[in-house]
Amino acid sequence: MRRIRIKGVNDMKEYAFGIDLGGTTAKVGLFTTSGKLLEKWEVSTDTSNNGAHILENLAAAVQQKMQEKGLSADKVEGVGLGVPGPVLDSSIVPIVCANLGGWGNRNVSIELSELLGGIRVLVGNDANVAALGEIWMGTAQGCRSAVMVTLGTGVGGGIIVDGRIVSGLGGAGGEPGHSLLVLDGEPCTCGRRGCWEVYASATALIRQGREAAAAHPTSLLNRYPELTGRDVFDAADAGDEAAQAVLERYYVYVAAGITDLVNILSPEMVLIGGGISRQGERLLRPIRRYVAANCFGGESRPQPIIQAAQLGNEAGIIGAAAL
Amino acid sequence: MRRIRIKGVNDMKEYAFGIDLGGTTAKVGLFTTSGKLLEKWEVSTDTSNNGAHILENLAAAVQQKMQEKGLSADKVEGVGLGVPGPVLDSSIVPIVCANLGGWGNRNVSIELSELLGGIRVLVGNDANVAALGEIWMGTAQGCRSAVMVTLGTGVGGGIIVDGRIVSGLGGAGGEPGHSLLVLDGEPCTCGRRGCWEVYASATALIRQGREAAAAHPTSLLNRYPELTGRDVFDAADAGDEAAQAVLERYYVYVAAGITDLVNILSPEMVLIGGGISRQGERLLRPIRRYVAANCFGGESRPQPIIQAAQLGNEAGIIGAAAL
Repeated sequence: MRRIRIKGVNDMKEYAFGIDLGGTTAKVGLFTTSGKLLEKWEVSTDTSNNGAHILENLAAAVQQKMQEKGLSADKVEGVGLGVPGPVLDSSIVPIVCANLGGWGNRNVSIELSELLGGIRVLVGNDANVAALGEIWMGTAQGCRSAVMVTLGTGVGGGIIVDGRIVSGLGGAGGEPGHSLLVLDGEPCTCGRRGCWEVYASATALIRQGREAAAAHPTSLLNRYPELTGRDVFDAADAGDEAAQAVLERYYVYVAAGITDLVNILSPEMVLIGGGISRQGERLLRPIRRYVAANCFGGESRPQPIIQAAQLGNEAGIIGAAAL
Repeated sequence: MRRIRIKGVNDMKEYAFGIDLGGTTAKVGLFTTSGKLLEKWEVSTDTSNNGAHILENLAAAVQQKMQEKGLSADKVEGVGLGVPGPVLDSSIVPIVCANLGGWGNRNVSIELSELLGGIRVLVGNDANVAALGEIWMGTAQGCRSAVMVTLGTGVGGGIIVDGRIVSGLGGAGGEPGHSLLVLDGEPCTCGRRGCWEVYASATALIRQGREAAAAHPTSLLNRYPELTGRDVFDAADAGDEAAQAVLERYYVYVAAGITDLVNILSPEMVLIGGGISRQGERLLRPIRRYVAANCFGGESRPQPIIQAAQLGNEAGIIGAAAL
């Protein structure tokens, strides 16, 4: 999608902005076009008036930084924007139906570009954009196909095939968190029952920890008034059997859904992101073991590399810049 | 992957062969390069000696037809071959690990091409190839992305994104039949428990029908000594409540797995193949209703078109020719 141009000293596009737009704040990064992060900062997301000022504020943040750094528009390759909603088409007419104080369908790409005096703006779904970031600069560097699974409030997903985001019709794909783990199982916020994220999100781990605490009054899990996912790991480390049992089962929940994705897509790499992925090998080892034993074809078939995502909170702005 | 050539009257590649290699027979079709099926026939698959003669027999079948029709090699664009196993890379080095009397890893593409005096041979997994056939000439004509689900002995899958087969690392993708419907559910032939195909295959419908027959001694289902999937539909048509209940539940099983694929890939079209798809609208209507109600984003998001595959047994040879 790069415009054809004759390069000269005065026409070098050396910089790009990456924006990861969330419901509370937007993270913004200034990058070189080779992917080096020069500076990052946050601006708050103003969801008042159905989010009417969101784009103005983002444009102001970018323009202020350009002024501060003395960057003229012709030095900026473009602005990449990750949004928390489906994106119809990232390359041509990005119409976004984001849940940001009630945005309707908007052509965010064109609107933001106009606010920025014509600087090119590309838009993608935030989870997909984070996956792209990991492929550009993170753990999955050089991979042609990868699946990223983010264990957070829910279970987010980003799917890359042949180096491109697979978001499907209406940009509505890449939602493995709402695939079934248990038909007619526990209720999910999406209205369905038994979705993977009801069992494998960080929220789910906390719920499972609380249930174990209630069932085992002597468990260390009862010592945390505001139980977090990390507390469950800490209690298990301290030898608490109830916490250990919760984790053993939680690993199965996470790994079972990953096995499904491996059976469907057979990606080169599976990346696990979100706060829980900071547990590293202790989380990854049992997942790898389960996937190898349970994927179709078993251990005799090529196995994906399963790793923690490494860019953390920066994946969003890096992936956005990669757009 | 087309070779660059100077076209002349004597150098027009007008024909292509499509072969759908199965464990019992291989279906072979002679096509024009524009996709018209001129003739189809079958040759038996000789699985003796670890399938040592399979390729020779296929080559002989193709050469015999060329002789019969007076086709010289320079009139033949190539031979496409669908095999019942994973294919590492359909375009460069197709190494096939097929379960055909014990084939090991073989470069089927090169071997068959040599047997045919250098005619180009492209190889793909049979389920993926059938999906490609439907996109080339069948129900999904013109679609850029489609998922094909075949309800047969198992549940086969073919995934097309951006007009290309997604088979993933080791060609091992496209197996949604072995994704979970119920964690720790009924045992599957693959060794896992609770796979979609244990609930949604034709085999599963027959099992569910038999169980209902045993539970309801007066049900019409008891009148069929060798119950088939079709018999369950017939009994339901005749007003049998046990059969009707089996079908209601079976539609949920099929639709729930399709919903998962829609959440992950959001394809333009979902095609249902296999003998059961001949039930047409009576099967499709409840599936469409379930998917719209249960997919992430619900009815407000763009819905895939859900249709029966139309090429039936010919999808394999048509898709193979499309390779």
